[in-house]
Amino acid sequence: MKKYTIGIDIGGTNMKAVLFNGEKIVMDYSLATPKDTLDHLIIMIIALVKPLEEKAQALKVKIDGVGLSVAGTHDFARGIITDSPNMLLLNGVELKKLVAEKLEMPVEMDNDGNCFVRAEVKLGAAKKHKNVYGIIISTGIGGGWWFKNRAYRGEHGGAGEPGAMIIDFGDLINLEDSYQKLNQNNSLNLATEAYRGDELAQKAYEEIGKLLGVACANIINILDPEVIVIGGGATNSSDLFFSQIKKTIPGLVLNTLSRKTKVIKGKLGNDSGAIGAALLFN
Amino acid sequence: MKKYTIGIDIGGTNMKAVLFNGEKIVMDYSLATPKDTLDHLIIMIIALVKPLEEKAQALKVKIDGVGLSVAGTHDFARGIITDSPNMLLLNGVELKKLVAEKLEMPVEMDNDGNCFVRAEVKLGAAKKHKNVYGIIISTGIGGGWWFKNRAYRGEHGGAGEPGAMIIDFGDLINLEDSYQKLNQNNSLNLATEAYRGDELAQKAYEEIGKLLGVACANIINILDPEVIVIGGGATNSSDLFFSQIKKTIPGLVLNTLSRKTKVIKGKLGNDSGAIGAALLFN
Repeated sequence: MKKYTIGIDIGGTNMKAVLFNGEKIVMDYSLATPKDTLDHLIIMIIALVKPLEEKAQALKVKIDGVGLSVAGTHDFARGIITDSPNMLLLNGVELKKLVAEKLEMPVEMDNDGNCFVRAEVKLGAAKKHKNVYGIIISTGIGGGWWFKNRAYRGEHGGAGEPGAMIIDFGDLINLEDSYQKLNQNNSLNLATEAYRGDELAQKAYEEIGKLLGVACANIINILDPEVIVIGGGATNSSDLFFSQIKKTIPGLVLNTLSRKTKVIKGKLGNDSGAIGAALLFN
Repeated sequence: MKKYTIGIDIGGTNMKAVLFNGEKIVMDYSLATPKDTLDHLIIMIIALVKPLEEKAQALKVKIDGVGLSVAGTHDFARGIITDSPNMLLLNGVELKKLVAEKLEMPVEMDNDGNCFVRAEVKLGAAKKHKNVYGIIISTGIGGGWWFKNRAYRGEHGGAGEPGAMIIDFGDLINLEDSYQKLNQNNSLNLATEAYRGDELAQKAYEEIGKLLGVACANIINILDPEVIVIGGGATNSSDLFFSQIKKTIPGLVLNTLSRKTKVIKGKLGNDSGAIGAALLFN
């Protein structure tokens, strides 16, 4: 029998919910993310879930739980978002408990990087792999490591933050800041210019590829996964920088055998967060 | 009943062997490391083990196996050192098999970083901790991660190489090179000068502390261990840079909860390699 769950990706601009049967999305529904008050946000999460509940009723199936994917650092033990990069009203909020009370259903919560890698391992590009590092690049850079059949969270919940990796010791600049500087905080414009043949834009993408290659090499020298899967909005223009990533890695990986770690592109696109959240009950 | 094993730390200058009863060193013996031929090296390893075998005989105990700690990258599946930083004659050699044949005993082999963290977890500064990252700093910088009751080796054997972490994206300089540049390849002189009050030497140690703090923060943002234990020759002068490590970390760790990761100094000194190797059979 199939297990039905709901997964919700709460983003800075939109929220997307999916009714998921363990294999694929049965129905999805999206709404804008309210940014005024927490009450408003909770009301809209209820509204977001409603059509999916009705669909489940029509299908005569039970929903086993609701998973939430939320960017930012978490206190997993307490179900609290400790630092949201794009929704200040979520900081310090016991979102998991609040949503569970309102929906009267079991709720689990995870960050976007962990949801991304979970989805790509279970259903996407990293299927059949057991040791997978995921990097998700949109405005910021998140990540997660899939190991021993779960997203590894670390001792205090702070694992899986490749964006915070310092890659410029002198000025203490991290990967995320360096990436944002290179794409001038506007990857859409930069990609358009690069595709049009603008040399400066193409040069910027070469640097982005080198930057991400360095990040991958650093991860390989620490974790040596089977596969690194890269997803998020930035991969829409991955042909502009993926070959540079692959070119950069081998010379920086110490153990020659570990140069075999594959770097691949995610398959699930914008659905990875919601699917990864829905999979929190599997 | 106690389990007796022998652990051998094969260094670039000396080889140290210990007869180990699972709790402490019963006897130890050292010899200079031959660097002329592989045959000579193997002969001296046999000579190194001999007095420990005699001691075991006198104690009427059986030796369960011999563990080797060897710096460099390994092909663990084949028991081969793929790249030795200080003993070219070991490159590509099936050392584990060769030593096992000569000694007629079970032999296991691991790199120095893994042996260091194993020893510090089982008997040293990180006792009772379960998720421990070890960094060992002598001429170079090695490391290893203790997780789920073993040293994590990665999918292809290349995990645990923090020295290869790029910390200067622009010039692609890694942690080890940056460290060697800061201590001018001579930590003994630099420490002496710093203790004498030389401001430039003290400044260099501040930079070393900042550098290692950045490395620790990068590890915390990826792995979030309970404890980071730092050992190796460099920690003889750890008072010159340890406080700077601890000062650097918190501002660079994204998840506030993970700023709790402790950074401590190893306890076993030069014995960690041999003890960690002896513990390969426990």
